[in-house]
Amino acid sequence: MLIGYLGPKGSFSHHVAQKAFPKGKLVPLKNITEVMKAYESGQVDYSIVPVENSIEGSVHETLDYLFHQAAIQAVAEIVQPIKQQLLATSLNKPIEKVFSHPQAIAQGQKYISQHYPNAQFEITASTANAARFVAEHPDMNYAAIAPQASASEYHLKVVARDIQEMEENYTRFWILGHRVPELDLPKQGDKQTLALTLPDNLPGALYKALSTFAWRGIDLTKIESRPLKTALGEYFFIIDINNEKKKLVEFAYQELANLGITFKVFGSYTVFLIHDK
Amino acid sequence: MLIGYLGPKGSFSHHVAQKAFPKGKLVPLKNITEVMKAYESGQVDYSIVPVENSIEGSVHETLDYLFHQAAIQAVAEIVQPIKQQLLATSLNKPIEKVFSHPQAIAQGQKYISQHYPNAQFEITASTANAARFVAEHPDMNYAAIAPQASASEYHLKVVARDIQEMEENYTRFWILGHRVPELDLPKQGDKQTLALTLPDNLPGALYKALSTFAWRGIDLTKIESRPLKTALGEYFFIIDINNEKKKLVEFAYQELANLGITFKVFGSYTVFLIHDK
Repeated sequence: MLIGYLGPKGSFSHHVAQKAFPKGKLVPLKNITEVMKAYESGQVDYSIVPVENSIEGSVHETLDYLFHQAAIQAVAEIVQPIKQQLLATSLNKPIEKVFSHPQAIAQGQKYISQHYPNAQFEITASTANAARFVAEHPDMNYAAIAPQASASEYHLKVVARDIQEMEENYTRFWILGHRVPELDLPKQGDKQTLALTLPDNLPGALYKALSTFAWRGIDLTKIESRPLKTALGEYFFIIDINNEKKKLVEFAYQELANLGITFKVFGSYTVFLIHDK
Repeated sequence: MLIGYLGPKGSFSHHVAQKAFPKGKLVPLKNITEVMKAYESGQVDYSIVPVENSIEGSVHETLDYLFHQAAIQAVAEIVQPIKQQLLATSLNKPIEKVFSHPQAIAQGQKYISQHYPNAQFEITASTANAARFVAEHPDMNYAAIAPQASASEYHLKVVARDIQEMEENYTRFWILGHRVPELDLPKQGDKQTLALTLPDNLPGALYKALSTFAWRGIDLTKIESRPLKTALGEYFFIIDINNEKKKLVEFAYQELANLGITFKVFGSYTVFLIHDK
């Protein structure tokens, strides 16, 4: 079974793919859009994409593509804790430059400035790219902020462990596919994500849309407006709902349709958790 | 009068600062957080920060800082159309590398791949940084995707004009300050932006919060959830409301307070438009 993920090897996406499909053949792809296209074109059986981080918020590349261009279903969600490591080719070497993705730099900045006040930061496209680059330059005084998986993948030493500033840092990943996969991971409830487009001629349309869920006691766990990319001030709305009252959710959808509110379901899925040691 | 903005010179922020305060002394700062801190510390009289782009969505660095760390008011909003130019040190030179911010690269990719199929892209921290870098390397076959303001600032030639893929591309900027400035720009209505934090023990709290505006006929022009940075699934909500019914808005705030919903007003402001030739 072929599984597409956001490469290179040693990324958080790679780690999630390994945890979800330990027997799968994992196919690294160069950006999130390529990961989704690989699934659409049948090049892989499932694709794994990041959806939201607890600090940074939604991954727009994923949600915008699913809304504007795709007819793909999320069939499972995996929640991955994000912990960042300071990696180098050897321990105790001086560190002059630290490479990482801007988000990981933001999380590691405090630690680095305390312990390596003269170190400079260099931005890379991903944390795993940073690790690979550092591994390729063993003669330089370089370090990377990257996940544990990158240390194993590129044979780097962990100079400092869990240097991220915020303790509570998680990323939600979706598995895109035709069938619900069987995952050997602990479960945490059922959700559904949909995108609403509101008609221009319905005053208070968003309020009415939310009413269809509220008066049935269906919990919304998230709401977010995203630009429709037409004009400033025109949005679609991504909402996550608790999918434990399936019959009531169906009635809510009928009512949305009657109100003239268009909706696109991104998926009905079980949420799984990864517990790293 | 001192005005802080996101530098370097030649950025869209710089252009907005020049349009808003043609007689101001403009102070470039190295990132958005520094722009806000410069105002907080009294280093400048006003600061100008980007808030939202019609394609990319909200600027999280701005909104998160205003929510979590600041007690600053937005006193005016400026809407700037985003148009990207292909710039080089001379016309008709071969172009081997194109430098720009990832968002501008995304917008210019189609044009570049049609006209310069062999050109490689290099990421920079901002479009103005890309322009400055290209100007500093006149012997190389480099080009930048950057605003018109960068061409004048760094004496670059416009190789191709308005190469962005999407026609409707705008960025909202806020002026942070103590007093409402007098701007010589066309006006487009009054808005207010606030951040809501919902109590845990109020079922359907978001729905109730929106009700306070909906049944008074106060239009919401935007709603967005942002992570509270505590745990996945905990959010605050940024809403933009039409502020033309000021008395009704006050009543809505009283009702929010009675419901136990906390809110922080980011500003009550007039929206101004920039029309570039």
